[in-house]
Amino acid sequence: MGKAHSNAWRQAPRFFDLPAEIRMATICGRDRAATSRAASKLGWESSTTDWRTVITDPGIDIVDICTPNDLHAEIAIAAARAGKAVLCEKPLARDGREAAQMVEAVRRARVVNMVCHNYRRVPAIALAKQMIEAGELGDRIYHFYARYAQDWIGNEKFPLVWRLQSRFAGSGALGDIGSHVIDLARYLVDEIDDVSAMSETFVKRRPLKTNKDIRARVDVDDAVTVIGRFRNGTLLNFEATRFAHGRKNQLSFEINGGRGSLIFDLEEMNRLRFFSATDPIGRQGFRDILVTEPTHPYVARWWPPGHVVG
Amino acid sequence: MGKAHSNAWRQAPRFFDLPAEIRMATICGRDRAATSRAASKLGWESSTTDWRTVITDPGIDIVDICTPNDLHAEIAIAAARAGKAVLCEKPLARDGREAAQMVEAVRRARVVNMVCHNYRRVPAIALAKQMIEAGELGDRIYHFYARYAQDWIGNEKFPLVWRLQSRFAGSGALGDIGSHVIDLARYLVDEIDDVSAMSETFVKRRPLKTNKDIRARVDVDDAVTVIGRFRNGTLLNFEATRFAHGRKNQLSFEINGGRGSLIFDLEEMNRLRFFSATDPIGRQGFRDILVTEPTHPYVARWWPPGHVVG
Amino acid sequence: MGKAHSNAWRQAPRFFDLPAEIRMATICGRDRAATSRAASKLGWESSTTDWRTVITDPGIDIVDICTPNDLHAEIAIAAARAGKAVLCEKPLARDGREAAQMVEAVRRARVVNMVCHNYRRVPAIALAKQMIEAGELGDRIYHFYARYAQDWIGNEKFPLVWRLQSRFAGSGALGDIGSHVIDLARYLVDEIDDVSAMSETFVKRRPLKTNKDIRARVDVDDAVTVIGRFRNGTLLNFEATRFAHGRKNQLSFEINGGRGSLIFDLEEMNRLRFFSATDPIGRQGFRDILVTEPTHPYVARWWPPGHVVG
Amino acid sequence: MGKAHSNAWRQAPRFFDLPAEIRMATICGRDRAATSRAASKLGWESSTTDWRTVITDPGIDIVDICTPNDLHAEIAIAAARAGKAVLCEKPLARDGREAAQMVEAVRRARVVNMVCHNYRRVPAIALAKQMIEAGELGDRIYHFYARYAQDWIGNEKFPLVWRLQSRFAGSGALGDIGSHVIDLARYLVDEIDDVSAMSETFVKRRPLKTNKDIRARVDVDDAVTVIGRFRNGTLLNFEATRFAHGRKNQLSFEINGGRGSLIFDLEEMNRLRFFSATDPIGRQGFRDILVTEPTHPYVARWWPPGHVVG
Repeated sequence: MGKAHSNAWRQAPRFFDLPAEIRMATICGRDRAATSRAASKLGWESSTTDWRTVITDPGIDIVDICTPNDLHAEIAIAAARAGKAVLCEKPLARDGREAAQMVEAVRRARVVNMVCHNYRRVPAIALAKQMIEAGELGDRIYHFYARYAQDWIGNEKFPLVWRLQSRFAGSGALGDIGSHVIDLARYLVDEIDDVSAMSETFVKRRPLKTNKDIRARVDVDDAVTVIGRFRNGTLLNFEATRFAHGRKNQLSFEINGGRGSLIFDLEEMNRLRFFSATDPIGRQGFRDILVTEPTHPYVARWWPPGHVVG
Repeated sequence: MGKAHSNAWRQAPRFFDLPAEIRMATICGRDRAATSRAASKLGWESSTTDWRTVITDPGIDIVDICTPNDLHAEIAIAAARAGKAVLCEKPLARDGREAAQMVEAVRRARVVNMVCHNYRRVPAIALAKQMIEAGELGDRIYHFYARYAQDWIGNEKFPLVWRLQSRFAGSGALGDIGSHVIDLARYLVDEIDDVSAMSETFVKRRPLKTNKDIRARVDVDDAVTVIGRFRNGTLLNFEATRFAHGRKNQLSFEINGGRGSLIFDLEEMNRLRFFSATDPIGRQGFRDILVTEPTHPYVARWWPPGHVVG
Repeated sequence: MGKAHSNAWRQAPRFFDLPAEIRMATICGRDRAATSRAASKLGWESSTTDWRTVITDPGIDIVDICTPNDLHAEIAIAAARAGKAVLCEKPLARDGREAAQMVEAVRRARVVNMVCHNYRRVPAIALAKQMIEAGELGDRIYHFYARYAQDWIGNEKFPLVWRLQSRFAGSGALGDIGSHVIDLARYLVDEIDDVSAMSETFVKRRPLKTNKDIRARVDVDDAVTVIGRFRNGTLLNFEATRFAHGRKNQLSFEINGGRGSLIFDLEEMNRLRFFSATDPIGRQGFRDILVTEPTHPYVARWWPPGHVVG
Repeated sequence: MGKAHSNAWRQAPRFFDLPAEIRMATICGRDRAATSRAASKLGWESSTTDWRTVITDPGIDIVDICTPNDLHAEIAIAAARAGKAVLCEKPLARDGREAAQMVEAVRRARVVNMVCHNYRRVPAIALAKQMIEAGELGDRIYHFYARYAQDWIGNEKFPLVWRLQSRFAGSGALGDIGSHVIDLARYLVDEIDDVSAMSETFVKRRPLKTNKDIRARVDVDDAVTVIGRFRNGTLLNFEATRFAHGRKNQLSFEINGGRGSLIFDLEEMNRLRFFSATDPIGRQGFRDILVTEPTHPYVARWWPPGHVVG
C-alpha cells in the first residue's frame, strides 16, 4: 500500500491542478534499510522507523496511515492531537469502539481527515454516482447487489499472515474488502438501516509464516454474506470472500432502479454498463460505456479515449 | 407454458430414443375455441375445457400440469388418485402444506411424478453437475452465489396479473423464479440447512386488468433476498427479483470450490465458464466453454458444435 | 442438414401461420435402411434412395436439396424442369458456371426457388437489417468487416471428407461458410463491386476415410481472406477459415456507419450489439441487445423475453 | 504524447531498477509559455522552443521525438549526428525514403535508437509473445487477424488537423494506428512477405481549424484494409480505421495456431484470451487470463493481482 500511496502523492500534481504543492517528506517503516531504499525508490525525502518522529515533525502537515490495522487508531489519534491532517487506510479500525475513538479524536482536534475508500474516485464509479444523482436510474433504487471476491487464500497452505489474525486485522474479508462495498453502498445509495449477516472461516488453521509445520487458528472471517435494507427502502445484498477462485479483485455491483440499471466490476475498471428503460423498445440493452471520454469524471486529465487508466 | 410443453412432447422423440411412443392426447384450457385452435396448432389430438375429463380418460397415462399455481394441488392429487403419472410445473404449490399433500398423494398412489425444474437439463447446467461430481471444483464447495433477475414488472403500470396475487400464485418472485434457484442449489450442491431471508413488495398497488382506474393490493413479494448455509457447509446467497431492468431471464449462479469455480447465466444458456486452479500459473482464467460439443450432455442429439440450442 | 431441414418443416406451422399446410412426403438418402429410420424419426411419410422418384412424384410440390454440392445442379435443374419449387442448400453450386445453369433452369421453368441462406432469418440479423434500412447507422456505411471462423479441421489427422475435395465441394471454406458472409454482405449492405482475395490450404494432404495410412491431396481452400469495395463505397473485409481453434461457428460481423455500429456473432445468436453515436455524450457505449423481445423480428411467435432461441 | 512520455520517464525508475539514473533535462515545444508550464507540470528541469538547443546540449544523452511526423526525420538525423540516443514516435517517417535516411543516420552514428512501438510492452502482449515462442499455439501459426479501430473523425465536421494532412502526417490511419499492427505482426509472427491493400478517404473535405467555413482536401487515408502472407506462411488480414463508431482505441488481434488461439483488445489491455486445443475435450474454451499475476511480464513491479494497469 505504501507503494500505491507514494505513487498517488507523486503523480497527483502531474495530472491535476492542486491548491497546494506536495512535498513527500518522510516515509516510515519497520526495517531501517528497506525503508531507506523505499524512500529513494518511491520519491520520499527521508525515512524513519519511528512513526512518532513523523507526528512530532512540525514540517509535516499530513499523516497518511498505511500500516496494518492494529496501528491505525494509535497513530491516527496521536496525529490528530498533533494537529495533522489524518488520512487512514481502510478498514478504519479493528472494531467499532476503536473507530469511534478515532472519530472523536479528529473531531476534537478539528483536523482534516479521510478514510482511504479510494474507489469512489474510479471514473466509472464517480460516473455512476453522477447518473444516480441525476435520476438516470429513476426516483427509486430497488436493489444494491454487490460482491467483492478474491481468491488469494483459497489455497489451504497459504500461511497465517497478519490479515488472518484478529488482533492485527480486526476482521477478515469483512473489513479488508467488505468495507469497500459498504462504503460504496453508502456513497451510491443511502445509509443502511438493518442487516442480517453470516460469516464463515473455511480454513480454520493455517501454517505459521515462521514455521510451516505449526498450524494456528484463523480467527477472522474468510467470507461474509449479508442481506439488509437501506433507509430509503432499497434492498441490500452483498458478499465478501477471499475464496472465489478466478476472482482476483472483483469489486462488483449491480444497481437496479425504476428507470434503469448499472453494473460495475473493478477488474474492468474503465467500464460502466448502463441499461436505460427509456431507450426505445427493441433497442434496449446494457450499454458498455468505456469511461475514458473527456466528459467523464477526472478523465480529461489523463489519456485520450480508449487509453485505459489503471 | 402450454406452448413450451407441447413443443417438448412433440420434439423429444425426434431427437432422443425414448422407451415409449408419445401420443399427444388432450390439451385442456379455459376457452373452448382457443383451446381447440391450440390443439390443432400445437399438435394435440383433442381438446377440452374440463380437466376432469383428462383425469378420467383411461387412454391417458401422463398428466402434465401447466395451470396457474392455485390449481396444481387439486389436479395433481386427482391425477395421482386416478393412477396417472403426474408432471407439475413449478412452483409445486402455493405453500408447504399444499405441497405436502401433493407429495403424500403421489406417494400413496405410487405414481411416477416430477416437478418441472427443467433447467437441470440445460446442457451447460448438466455439465456443471458432472464437473462438480467429478471433483473438478475440489472436495469442498465454498460458495453458491446466485441471482434470478427479470424486469417484466418494473413498470408501475403493469397490471395485477394472477402471478401478483397470493391466492393464485402463493408467492411472487420467490416461487416463480426463486424456486428454480433453490432447485439448482439442491441439485448442484446439497440440501440447505438454514436461511435468513427478506422479501419486499416495491409496488404495493397495481391497476386491475379489467379496469385500469382501480388499483388493488399486490400481496406477493416483488423480490426476495436470502443468505444461508448448506448441510455440507457451503455458504448460500441468492436473490430473486422482477425489478432488475435489463435482466430478462437472468438465472445466474457462481459456484466457488477448493479447486475451481463455475459461472452460468441462462441468458447465455449455451455457455459455462470454468476456472480451474489446477491450470498452470500464469495461464489461468475463466474458460468460456461453448457447451455445444458432442461430448457435452444431450448435445450429440442436437446440432454441430457452435450451433446453439434454445 | 437433413435433420435440421426436417425440424424446420415440422416446426414452422407450430409457431407461424402459414398460407399452406405442410406435408412431409418423402426423404431421400443413399442407404435404404438408414433413410427409412430417418423418415420415421424425423417425421417423413416415406423414404427413397432414388432422388428421381421425388422429382417425378406429382404429389410433391417442393424439392429441398441438402446433398453434397456436386449433386445440387443436377437435382435442381431436374426439379425445376418438373415444375417443382426448388430449395437448395448453400453453396448453390461448385462453381459459377454450374450456378448459372441452375439459375437459368429455374428462370425458364418459372418455379419458386431459394438458396438456403437461412441466417438472414436469425432474429438479430433481421433486426440489423431493419435498423440499417431505417437509417439507424446513418446514411453511409463505411465498413463491413466479417469473419466466419471454425476449427473442425484444425487437427491434421482429420480425414479427407467430401467437403475437402473439389469435385464434390467445389471450394472449401469459401463456399461452405464464406458464402454465408457474402450473402449477408449483400443482404445488409449492397452488391460487391471489386475484391482482392487470397486462399490457402494449410494442410495439403490428409488421410483417406477408408484407409488412414494413405494420404491424398486436399484441393480446396482451408481459408480465404478478402478485401474489396461495395457498389455504395463501403469497404469490405472478410475472412473464412476452418483453422481458428476455439471458434466453433463464429459467423461474426461488424458494420460501421456514419451514425453507429453493429456487431453480431452467431455463437451468441440472440444478441446484437449496437452503438449509437446519437446517444448522449458520456452515455455512449455498445448496447447489448438481447433479441428476444416480442417486438423483435419473428420473436413474438417464440418464447418470452430472455428465453433464447436456438 | 509529450505528457505520456514524460510520465514514462518519471515513473520508470519508481517501478523498475534501471541501469542508469534518469534526469529529465529539457522539454521542447512551440509555444514558450505553454512549454514552460508543461516543464513544471510534467517534471522537466528546463524548457525550450528550439529543438536544436537540445541537440547541441552536451548534458543530454537521449532525444525523445514526439513531434508531428514531418519533423521526425530532421530531428532524428541531427540527433544521431550529434551522438545522441534517438527515440522516435511512430510512424517513424512520412514515407519509406525518409525512414531509410533515418535508419542510415543512426547506423552511421552507431547510436542507440528505437521506434516507440510501446504496445510490445503491454503485459498481455508480452505474454502473448512468450506463449508463441514457447510453442503454446503450436508449431505453425495459421492466421494473424487484426483490427485497429477508432472513431474520432467519424464526425464530418471534425476539422482538418495535421494528422489528416499528408505533408505533416505522411499517411492517415495506416501510419498512425496501422503501424502498431504491423509492428505487432512482425513482433509476434514473422516478417511480412506480400500484401494486397486498399485505402479509402470517406470524408474528402474538412473544415479548416482556423476557419470552419472553408473546407480543404483530406489527402490521407481514413481507413486501410490489407491481406497478405508472412514469410512463414501465416495469412495476414488487418484493417485500420478511424471510422468505427464505438471503437475508441481498439487495437485488437486474433492469432490462430496449430494448437491454440490468442485474442487481445487494447480496450481491455489487462486481458489475454487463450484457447488451448490441448485442454481436455469438453473442457475447452477461451480462457480469460487477467494479466495481473506476479508471474506475468513486468507485473511483479506493479500492483497486486486484479489491480489493473493503465
